[in-house]
Amino acid sequence: MSSSIGLIAGMGVLPLHVADEASTRGLKVIAIAFPGLTDPSLERIVGETFWLKLGQLEKAISIFKSHGVEKIVMAGKIEKSNLLKIWNLRPDGRALRMIRSLKDWRDDTILAAIAEEFRKDGILIDEITPWAGKLMASSGVLTKRAPNDIQWKDIAFGRTMARGIGALDIGQTVVVKNAAVIAVEAIEGTDKAIRRAGELGVSNTVVVKMAKPQQDMRFDVPGIGPSTIDSMIAARARVLAIETGKTMITDFSETVRKADGAKISIVGIPVDGPVTE
Amino acid sequence: MSSSIGLIAGMGVLPLHVADEASTRGLKVIAIAFPGLTDPSLERIVGETFWLKLGQLEKAISIFKSHGVEKIVMAGKIEKSNLLKIWNLRPDGRALRMIRSLKDWRDDTILAAIAEEFRKDGILIDEITPWAGKLMASSGVLTKRAPNDIQWKDIAFGRTMARGIGALDIGQTVVVKNAAVIAVEAIEGTDKAIRRAGELGVSNTVVVKMAKPQQDMRFDVPGIGPSTIDSMIAARARVLAIETGKTMITDFSETVRKADGAKISIVGIPVDGPVTE
Repeated sequence: MSSSIGLIAGMGVLPLHVADEASTRGLKVIAIAFPGLTDPSLERIVGETFWLKLGQLEKAISIFKSHGVEKIVMAGKIEKSNLLKIWNLRPDGRALRMIRSLKDWRDDTILAAIAEEFRKDGILIDEITPWAGKLMASSGVLTKRAPNDIQWKDIAFGRTMARGIGALDIGQTVVVKNAAVIAVEAIEGTDKAIRRAGELGVSNTVVVKMAKPQQDMRFDVPGIGPSTIDSMIAARARVLAIETGKTMITDFSETVRKADGAKISIVGIPVDGPVTE
Repeated sequence: MSSSIGLIAGMGVLPLHVADEASTRGLKVIAIAFPGLTDPSLERIVGETFWLKLGQLEKAISIFKSHGVEKIVMAGKIEKSNLLKIWNLRPDGRALRMIRSLKDWRDDTILAAIAEEFRKDGILIDEITPWAGKLMASSGVLTKRAPNDIQWKDIAFGRTMARGIGALDIGQTVVVKNAAVIAVEAIEGTDKAIRRAGELGVSNTVVVKMAKPQQDMRFDVPGIGPSTIDSMIAARARVLAIETGKTMITDFSETVRKADGAKISIVGIPVDGPVTE
């Protein structure tokens, strides 16, 4: 049993949480970080940090192997728009071979291919949830304010829509009002989809973010945080519904404080069944 | 058999085309138009034009009845964002009752309710396609430039995605690249969805617009026109694929001229089966 764990660290505070949890369990953390993406303060809480470009797959694998890492966690968003700018990736030989073998550019395809490369060298990618349990949304109303009856209906409607676009692997988030879909998230991300609904002049909306039905919890777990609430305030959205146990809340206290200040409701909802309290 | 036909005239040139076609067939056209939405030049080609607010349902019905109209055509977009601003509608008693009876605000629900009100007074809404046959997209490549192999693959992928979001009654259009969905149209409309893909920094995209699987061809037939190409040029999109026989091209020659000038391909594709030439 290895006493170290690898960490591929994307954007935001999530990699810090995972590193903290792993350290608490007495594991040494070997981190791969990316300039411009990863929070530099990661270096203060992990054993060793290696700064690479996104395309340095060979290098990442050899770093983990030379440190005896057999299990890694991928934490923190690496926006797909970064991956699409393929010539900014500086892919090494191994990454290039992997890219050429992709049958398409869907999230699941890319991430499965990356996982397979690591697996070939005896390195397994773990689900993130066991390393970030404290951050997962619980069930029910998380804010002072609860949704009203009409909003609960829109939460149920939005859940159906979000699962529909998730099943198509398009995105995780929809913005709805009165059983009409105002905005759908594709690659632009949750915040921009929320802001767009406001820019279209539709306020008092309900935002629903669900894991994809086929979501691989090793990668890209749905997340919300203070910036989500900032976007909702800008768009005058009223309710945020997220999937219980599958959505991470980065900086829970700040997220709820902001929501309470703006009289926004946040609720954790199950993947199916009734959504009311 | 009535020798007159009613026309509910929304935005754009489509109402003019329908009025022209009806006049050519020797029918008298009784038009309901909306200030700020309907092209005022409609008055020059129809028998009588009545300018109403969107919510004047009772008045519209009584105008048609008093002119012996038994069949009407709804032509030209009335953007859903107008309908959502319900207090700007100035609904009359009949419209209010209809609105209160709506089980939700989906396009299909609203339009079916409107159709039912007219039906109660003996007025039927006709499909628009027989009145706009010259405008419907034909099959195959409509421009000088044809898509390349990769683009044909994205057309097929985009068709699947567009039908998926159509089945959810979200929208008709997706913007795709390399089998990834860059933007999904909800209520913002096709042009804004296309422009968004460009604003996200993703160029050389493929735009696919399909009728919804359950599309009621009496209402809201998918349409493209010169402004669609303007949006594609702004977003540096390369290919526009539209459903043959179900998508209207307003101002065909100008649309194709603009596309040719920008080396954009426009193709008519079937609802299923192979999409290549």
